[in-house]
Amino acid sequence: MPMRQPLLVPDLRELIHAGERDAVREFLEEHHPGQVAELVEDLEPSEGDTLINLLEPRVRAEVMSYLEPETQVRVVEAMNPEDAATLLQVMSHDERAVLVKRLDDDIVDDILRRLANAEREDIRRLASYEQGTAGAVMTTDYATLPPDITVREAIDRLRREAPDKETIYYSYIVDENRKLLGLVSLKTLLLSRPRARIEEVMSTEPISARLDDDQESVARKIEDYDLIAIPVVDIDDRLVGIVTYDDAMDILQREQTEDILRFGGVAADHEEDEVPYWQSSVINAVRRRIGWLLLLFFGGTLTSFIVRMFHWVDVRLEPEINLAMFIPLLIGTGGNAGSQSVGTIIRGLALGEITRADAMRVLVREWTTGLLLGLLLGLLGFLYTWLILRNPPLVSLVIALAILGICTWANSVGALVPMLARRLGIDPAVVSAPMISTLVDATGLIIYYTIAIFLLATFMH
Amino acid sequence: MPMRQPLLVPDLRELIHAGERDAVREFLEEHHPGQVAELVEDLEPSEGDTLINLLEPRVRAEVMSYLEPETQVRVVEAMNPEDAATLLQVMSHDERAVLVKRLDDDIVDDILRRLANAEREDIRRLASYEQGTAGAVMTTDYATLPPDITVREAIDRLRREAPDKETIYYSYIVDENRKLLGLVSLKTLLLSRPRARIEEVMSTEPISARLDDDQESVARKIEDYDLIAIPVVDIDDRLVGIVTYDDAMDILQREQTEDILRFGGVAADHEEDEVPYWQSSVINAVRRRIGWLLLLFFGGTLTSFIVRMFHWVDVRLEPEINLAMFIPLLIGTGGNAGSQSVGTIIRGLALGEITRADAMRVLVREWTTGLLLGLLLGLLGFLYTWLILRNPPLVSLVIALAILGICTWANSVGALVPMLARRLGIDPAVVSAPMISTLVDATGLIIYYTIAIFLLATFMH
Repeated sequence: MPMRQPLLVPDLRELIHAGERDAVREFLEEHHPGQVAELVEDLEPSEGDTLINLLEPRVRAEVMSYLEPETQVRVVEAMNPEDAATLLQVMSHDERAVLVKRLDDDIVDDILRRLANAEREDIRRLASYEQGTAGAVMTTDYATLPPDITVREAIDRLRREAPDKETIYYSYIVDENRKLLGLVSLKTLLLSRPRARIEEVMSTEPISARLDDDQESVARKIEDYDLIAIPVVDIDDRLVGIVTYDDAMDILQREQTEDILRFGGVAADHEEDEVPYWQSSVINAVRRRIGWLLLLFFGGTLTSFIVRMFHWVDVRLEPEINLAMFIPLLIGTGGNAGSQSVGTIIRGLALGEITRADAMRVLVREWTTGLLLGLLLGLLGFLYTWLILRNPPLVSLVIALAILGICTWANSVGALVPMLARRLGIDPAVVSAPMISTLVDATGLIIYYTIAIFLLATFMH
Repeated sequence: MPMRQPLLVPDLRELIHAGERDAVREFLEEHHPGQVAELVEDLEPSEGDTLINLLEPRVRAEVMSYLEPETQVRVVEAMNPEDAATLLQVMSHDERAVLVKRLDDDIVDDILRRLANAEREDIRRLASYEQGTAGAVMTTDYATLPPDITVREAIDRLRREAPDKETIYYSYIVDENRKLLGLVSLKTLLLSRPRARIEEVMSTEPISARLDDDQESVARKIEDYDLIAIPVVDIDDRLVGIVTYDDAMDILQREQTEDILRFGGVAADHEEDEVPYWQSSVINAVRRRIGWLLLLFFGGTLTSFIVRMFHWVDVRLEPEINLAMFIPLLIGTGGNAGSQSVGTIIRGLALGEITRADAMRVLVREWTTGLLLGLLLGLLGFLYTWLILRNPPLVSLVIALAILGICTWANSVGALVPMLARRLGIDPAVVSAPMISTLVDATGLIIYYTIAIFLLATFMH
């Protein structure tokens, strides 16, 4: 989210209301389109529309790309269809396709009628790719070059075409069937002999993506190889679009905030995830959350059976000993240790630091970590229940051993479950803190009561 | 993490052992430096070193930038100091500074002696900036232009300097004191009249960062404004470096995986976080986790006091009624709902969808969501305890109302705590699922027993 510059708003508002069009225009020219977009968001809708109308078409298109989706829709629906068509013509191809999907169908028809056939087709095609694929996020305004022209001719051509292209820093070399042959950067062009032929200076076999590749894997490739853009090809290796680094950054940002949702135990599917916090209804929020809550609730009911099953232990113990009172502390600690472990493992998997082959090593390591944490917390639990709550030392020993056992167990479960998910081909990020807590609750109780039965026989009557 | 291409490794290994240097070199030339780096990682160290030695210096420097830090160190320490100095000369300035920090001091001295004074100073200065600031991630190999030359002269100059620059797609315009005056993109240069002066075509007041800005805020600016690089200035507005988009992607990736760690309740400070999973020792893992666990453990001890405090309720109830057995289910459900809520809010804050001014609205919304979820789960809890566990309907009603109350409460706490953290200037991502669970455990018990006392008076004797 861009940073706000609230100080500029009052000044600008004054200029707008005073009708100082030239002053406003000058003001706007001095700022980055992203900053102008922030101002539009901060102004009243009518003021924002005035601002947009003062911009020349190309700058207007740039500002559009930084506006929130709902503001984009508002701005376009307030324009006359002629202006809207002009705007779409200069907007970047991926962004206009996304915008058209959000507009009212009648308005879309009215605008598209005013565009050239090729533009209309381009918008329709881009809008038709399945959400979440390379096709749906790519743009079609990239620069191509034939392999047999010279470097000098190529630079001249780029110079002419630059205003209409999303980026001219990479050019893609295609044959007469648009089959992707190679890639040349503008830097390489500038460094090459003007008379060299493109095919001599281009790099062959460029890293590319396929139309139906998942958008996250495409964004990762851009990140891994520090690319400015990646070419997208169809099944016949024909170039059909490019995905640029700035879109890759947005995709990775969205995917990673999805991971936070999932880790909190909220179902985060792509489709609904596009909806910002305020746009999704409470009912929708309930729907996304109830599934996991229900499942965990059913898992949780197991705990009541287990407590009931072991109720006889408490009944047969001396009245001054009450094992049930430590249940929340013990299973809480287990849940916490397990959540830490899951967090660590999900992160290691996401960064590629942990691979499939590491399963055993990871388990041993997390088990050891859990053991050490359990020793520390167990000692603390012993002192707390013995010295502060004045339990008999044997009871305190039960608590201490239970903490040790539960920590070690929770840590192993927290490591094992995401690794297992990965092995089953499920995104390890679906393993949430609540899931591990619930898994560890019931099993933790069994550990607790088993230790109690073995150690507290002397206290039973 | 780059994708692996295991199929290439055996072929390449064969070529290396057969001493087919030309074939290997040809093979390497056809691949992206990032792919070559993957191969080096997959080969045995000695084979990898052979591969590196076959590369010409500039490609070698590029491959270095994709290697894991520990591989970089191994490769450089295996080189003779002369070659290492040549390598540092062509490596990008930010990466060599990071590398030098990891090398053994003796080796560093040996290498730096062989470099020109200016290069040595550059490395020392970049290595001296505080970790986590713009200074520590910026590079100094950017292109600058004076304001009074022509576009044609500028392009010629860039052409000459291009091989040594991290990027030539943006040039920074500075006066004789290196004060930043403006920015011009290569695209703009190509589109401008060759005789225009740079100051006529440059954009003034470019978006910039300060030396001591937090690296995450710098990366966010690059993301928000779709920049290829951002200039970094000192307190006198003098240009001292640039941060490029690919470094910004890495920073955001690291910061966001940190959020996952924190959400799992692991302290994730910048310094230690640089250490990959396998490089940090078990002791280190324990140290990073024990703090939160201890704090939560102390918070959790509260639950045992509360259960003991309300023990009289269970004692005075009919023997067939056992309230304690539902404790794990009830507080577990509260913790789960609370974790979901925190996840939702942290995400909304991270994406900027929720702002400070929204506190009240957020609270009302999450409260309502919690109420609806509580109604659903409460109804389920009623049916479960009444029909399956055969409790008297009044007891089942206690369970149902407790679930309703705890869900609503947990949801509000889960929304409130991250908002509060934000207001206090603390990163909301420190609020973890375990923290909310622990907060909700003790208060959930009070809700449960309070409802029980009011409704179950008839069952007491």
